[in-house]
Amino acid sequence: MKLPVGILGATGAVGQRFIQLLENHPWFEVTEVAASDRSAGKTYAEACTWRLPGAPPEAVARLTVQTTDGPFRSRLLFSGLDSSVAGEVESALAAKDHAVVSNSRNHRMDADVPLLIPEVNSEHLEAVAVQQRRTGGGYIITNPNCSVVGLALALAPLHKAFGLASVHVVTLQALSGAGYPGVSSMDVADNVVPYIGGGEEEKIESEPRKILGGFANGAFVPAPFGISASVHRVAVSDGHTMAAFVRLVQPVSAADAMEALASFRGEPQERSLPTAPARPIHVLKGNDRPQPRLDRDRENGMAVSVGRVRADRDGGLKLEALVHNTIRGAAGAAILNGELLRARGLLA
Amino acid sequence: MKLPVGILGATGAVGQRFIQLLENHPWFEVTEVAASDRSAGKTYAEACTWRLPGAPPEAVARLTVQTTDGPFRSRLLFSGLDSSVAGEVESALAAKDHAVVSNSRNHRMDADVPLLIPEVNSEHLEAVAVQQRRTGGGYIITNPNCSVVGLALALAPLHKAFGLASVHVVTLQALSGAGYPGVSSMDVADNVVPYIGGGEEEKIESEPRKILGGFANGAFVPAPFGISASVHRVAVSDGHTMAAFVRLVQPVSAADAMEALASFRGEPQERSLPTAPARPIHVLKGNDRPQPRLDRDRENGMAVSVGRVRADRDGGLKLEALVHNTIRGAAGAAILNGELLRARGLLA
Amino acid sequence: MKLPVGILGATGAVGQRFIQLLENHPWFEVTEVAASDRSAGKTYAEACTWRLPGAPPEAVARLTVQTTDGPFRSRLLFSGLDSSVAGEVESALAAKDHAVVSNSRNHRMDADVPLLIPEVNSEHLEAVAVQQRRTGGGYIITNPNCSVVGLALALAPLHKAFGLASVHVVTLQALSGAGYPGVSSMDVADNVVPYIGGGEEEKIESEPRKILGGFANGAFVPAPFGISASVHRVAVSDGHTMAAFVRLVQPVSAADAMEALASFRGEPQERSLPTAPARPIHVLKGNDRPQPRLDRDRENGMAVSVGRVRADRDGGLKLEALVHNTIRGAAGAAILNGELLRARGLLA
Amino acid sequence: MKLPVGILGATGAVGQRFIQLLENHPWFEVTEVAASDRSAGKTYAEACTWRLPGAPPEAVARLTVQTTDGPFRSRLLFSGLDSSVAGEVESALAAKDHAVVSNSRNHRMDADVPLLIPEVNSEHLEAVAVQQRRTGGGYIITNPNCSVVGLALALAPLHKAFGLASVHVVTLQALSGAGYPGVSSMDVADNVVPYIGGGEEEKIESEPRKILGGFANGAFVPAPFGISASVHRVAVSDGHTMAAFVRLVQPVSAADAMEALASFRGEPQERSLPTAPARPIHVLKGNDRPQPRLDRDRENGMAVSVGRVRADRDGGLKLEALVHNTIRGAAGAAILNGELLRARGLLA
Repeated sequence: MKLPVGILGATGAVGQRFIQLLENHPWFEVTEVAASDRSAGKTYAEACTWRLPGAPPEAVARLTVQTTDGPFRSRLLFSGLDSSVAGEVESALAAKDHAVVSNSRNHRMDADVPLLIPEVNSEHLEAVAVQQRRTGGGYIITNPNCSVVGLALALAPLHKAFGLASVHVVTLQALSGAGYPGVSSMDVADNVVPYIGGGEEEKIESEPRKILGGFANGAFVPAPFGISASVHRVAVSDGHTMAAFVRLVQPVSAADAMEALASFRGEPQERSLPTAPARPIHVLKGNDRPQPRLDRDRENGMAVSVGRVRADRDGGLKLEALVHNTIRGAAGAAILNGELLRARGLLA
Repeated sequence: MKLPVGILGATGAVGQRFIQLLENHPWFEVTEVAASDRSAGKTYAEACTWRLPGAPPEAVARLTVQTTDGPFRSRLLFSGLDSSVAGEVESALAAKDHAVVSNSRNHRMDADVPLLIPEVNSEHLEAVAVQQRRTGGGYIITNPNCSVVGLALALAPLHKAFGLASVHVVTLQALSGAGYPGVSSMDVADNVVPYIGGGEEEKIESEPRKILGGFANGAFVPAPFGISASVHRVAVSDGHTMAAFVRLVQPVSAADAMEALASFRGEPQERSLPTAPARPIHVLKGNDRPQPRLDRDRENGMAVSVGRVRADRDGGLKLEALVHNTIRGAAGAAILNGELLRARGLLA
Repeated sequence: MKLPVGILGATGAVGQRFIQLLENHPWFEVTEVAASDRSAGKTYAEACTWRLPGAPPEAVARLTVQTTDGPFRSRLLFSGLDSSVAGEVESALAAKDHAVVSNSRNHRMDADVPLLIPEVNSEHLEAVAVQQRRTGGGYIITNPNCSVVGLALALAPLHKAFGLASVHVVTLQALSGAGYPGVSSMDVADNVVPYIGGGEEEKIESEPRKILGGFANGAFVPAPFGISASVHRVAVSDGHTMAAFVRLVQPVSAADAMEALASFRGEPQERSLPTAPARPIHVLKGNDRPQPRLDRDRENGMAVSVGRVRADRDGGLKLEALVHNTIRGAAGAAILNGELLRARGLLA
Repeated sequence: MKLPVGILGATGAVGQRFIQLLENHPWFEVTEVAASDRSAGKTYAEACTWRLPGAPPEAVARLTVQTTDGPFRSRLLFSGLDSSVAGEVESALAAKDHAVVSNSRNHRMDADVPLLIPEVNSEHLEAVAVQQRRTGGGYIITNPNCSVVGLALALAPLHKAFGLASVHVVTLQALSGAGYPGVSSMDVADNVVPYIGGGEEEKIESEPRKILGGFANGAFVPAPFGISASVHRVAVSDGHTMAAFVRLVQPVSAADAMEALASFRGEPQERSLPTAPARPIHVLKGNDRPQPRLDRDRENGMAVSVGRVRADRDGGLKLEALVHNTIRGAAGAAILNGELLRARGLLA
């Protein structure tokens, strides 16, 4: 018996990924789709210009799009809403007893909302109880910014084993990260844009500290290291590449760092969640890897690839990380969060 | 009366740029072209598959290609030779009284060979006299790696004014940097490659320290700061983008840094050398600049663009620099070096 | 003494090209710039996000943008207006005695408006007198669709010498043809789009027949051959490539066709108009030419390149044509039209 | 019990696709891999730089590469050999009783070698018996050029139902069609190349006529229509797009043509061969389809997509066809051919 779920922002870029990834999901079944007033009342097939390969699943194509006001029969709602509306809509639905699993940025840094990467900080789910005291039963959980998922996953084993002192990171981000129509083709043809709006650098500099920090006495305690980010848009369809310089409290060899990365596992692997990658981090040996076109789809896009782990000056490390930004970095991240909620009994 | 010059490696990617940039040059005239044995004896038009827009200049197209053994009538020889042969060929020609102005990497770090950016370290030309004592009259001068020209120019005013403590830099390098055929299209289609062979990172980590260092008591003294580099190939035709994190001995505001960069001038500007840009560094204000397609051709490709100068944590700076890799970063750099030699009377 | 001119739609993609190409023009000086109400009242520098390399000319940057209602002091107005507004605005200005030289599609097929390629059909300017009888003195002249300029120029010498029977043409069109933001990067990343809206195929199938036809007894008489077009958007910044299959009334060898193309000249060449290419058609010999990146800028983007002229079955020809779509195919085309008007005394 | 098969040219681009597509194949198991002398003696993992996403299958990675001289235990050999060696090697192996299923061009037009698209001309397998009389038991069958598979599949239903009179086709071909390293990135960056070597246009103009022709009295009889082709390389990783103008003996509406295309089935569908697409031709309704990135992977890359079917002048049709060039257009085509051989009992 599958659990019915609703998709908020179902016709958008992230919404389409939710629907694609949930086709044939063993636990969840998309039975409700919501979007803006402009789409409401149409079938999903009519309302949506499907921009992923192929065509939308038949069962969803026939659903009638409703507005995000609800009511929804599904307790679990996945949100791919635009940040211009996500804040209020998600709060309202949490107040109506829904479990809102959101990819939007609005509530990520809220004082009682988990910013969750299940392999890294599943203990942050304790904040749900705090939140429920406020709402009466509903709650919001969020996944990080698309780059941050890749960065924080790659940093987590190093932080646990050796302690992070500081991180400098430069991103080369894919076009799909901007949604549709997103970036003008004139801006990336034969070009690189050294800027991404919407506070991208600020998110990369703050979210990992919440994720890698603790939850104690009812409050999040950010991890004590600093991050500097410099972001770029490049002409790649999917897959964010990140070049990081990592300084550690305890100097470490490249070999030990690779061992810590490769052996990293978390609660999704222990529980064998349906969307969990067998190995959350693939450590690649080739000196020219990871590459977006060749590595973004590892484990159905749910594994982060790390390569070129090498010694930096002064005992630091240099490394490259790659994340499929619309799967592990967005819709897939949220689905894994939803799976963890169910496995923990938080959807009962 | 123009000075006759010869081009070594004339049919290659850098050689073609030399010939293109020297068309209608006010001081120099290409009268000799040399390449591998395979090309020797043919006209330049026959020997060369011209890969720049348009067609080679008529006067050069008619020249007969000779081998790099010489003899050459021109004292001044510009070298775009492949590093597999440049080392010996250039040494042999310096021993025959030629002034070899080379873009190749082989002699850059030699103990008595200037690694020259005329705006930055023209005092390193003192090493020529040391070299001449060894050779009897001929000598070699070199320009830096294509990325390094951009990086060292952007760092020079900051180092002079505030003192560099350390630099982390990530490059997004253009395809033309690899010559022809260079990078396979299959490797960059919808992709980024986080690696460049030939010791690219090592060059970026070492050459700027020679350039920004001194020459005292007949020896080069490297500048005392460390550089960490992480390099990438991206699908851009021309123009290397660099994201740098700069730590300074003396903390500085972004405004003061921009002022130091924008007001920077050197000997080429004082002497009004023909190829010198009016302003070696263009400080761009737009928050999404510099961009390769829009900014690489500033001042005929001889100006370096710097943008997004902003405060980093702990009193450091973040900035983006862009250099046209085959003009300011290669052939144009060497031509400017040649102009400085003439202006200094070193070609007499 | 330069003639003052105004630019309609000055902040748009075509408007920016007008301003770029008219910098330092020997006959014309941009003294008025007009755009939408949103921009009016600001300086051009404030109103315009300049998307061409470098920065807008200083003299224009200081101009205050006015609305397209006028009044304008310049008799000659170049129009790069969007087709959603060009129809009415241009008619109104022609009614106020202006000579409107438009790149917009709205009036191209009007019964008394020349659709002009000065090398091909300058005799169509006779229609101006017809038009002036209607307006009282003002008039509109237009240049063709960006692809059509290249196609019609390549076909004109063949039609004159041998007579066209039919043409099949497939286009591979550049991104800049769609303006800004134009095509979403998600639509062309690792992709080709076999469609262009706005009636692109219909324009290619109809405009050349007007251009290559006659003007007799006060009316245009379309040329009697048929054209079939199939259009594509490809990931190229500038330069439309066209593959044509041409059937001729009188069979012709590839050599004779190439001779007719290469020797083609028209009134702009006879009159040495400032923007006229010395040779309107460059016939390229390399079996892999023309190519957008290598050939679009020939003669400052005003020459059309034709290559791979070869025999087709049944006495026909196959050939490739390339046009710089925003120069010869848009702003440069209009400027050349304006120059012809002045040389003919039609701006007095 | 799976049939053991060998792969000739196993380390090349097509060889890698064979190995990828045969992983978990229900009928065939790769047990032998052959390549050049340079690779022989190494394990496949050592000999091969895997350029497809992920890594080669474990079972194949462990195999030792042998030379193409044999001996081979497998009767069935799939050949992805380079055309410089395929001619002789394949003939020699057919003479040794092997069934060689080749993707190489060398034997495609031989008088007794089927050029096979199983949905279209499976009756051409009668030529195998003719061939076996010559060889004593072994034989060669071939699949067409990568573009031709898509074109001939799209034309077959139209030819059967309405009779083809003539075809003009322009291709926009993907980079992977040139193998590795194939096309230099400098040749396609911001560019289109209107030429492909190796007789690409000639193949497209001749192979479909053999495929759509008959086999009678022991000889192939080409179909009586003419084809004109004009080929281009574009910056797309996988997927050849073709724009065709089709003239038919019997004029036809677009609707009837689409019906003929969409309902087309052949022997692979009747026999439910493992690699056969359920529908060989997907007729797409969107006016901007097919597109390589969105449609090349339909039915695991084995379906050809056809769109924009519309009336041309004079009763003809215009249409766009898309084929995944390294799957349906190469390795997948050969595997389907091999499956048909087994189903027909030709591997006994």
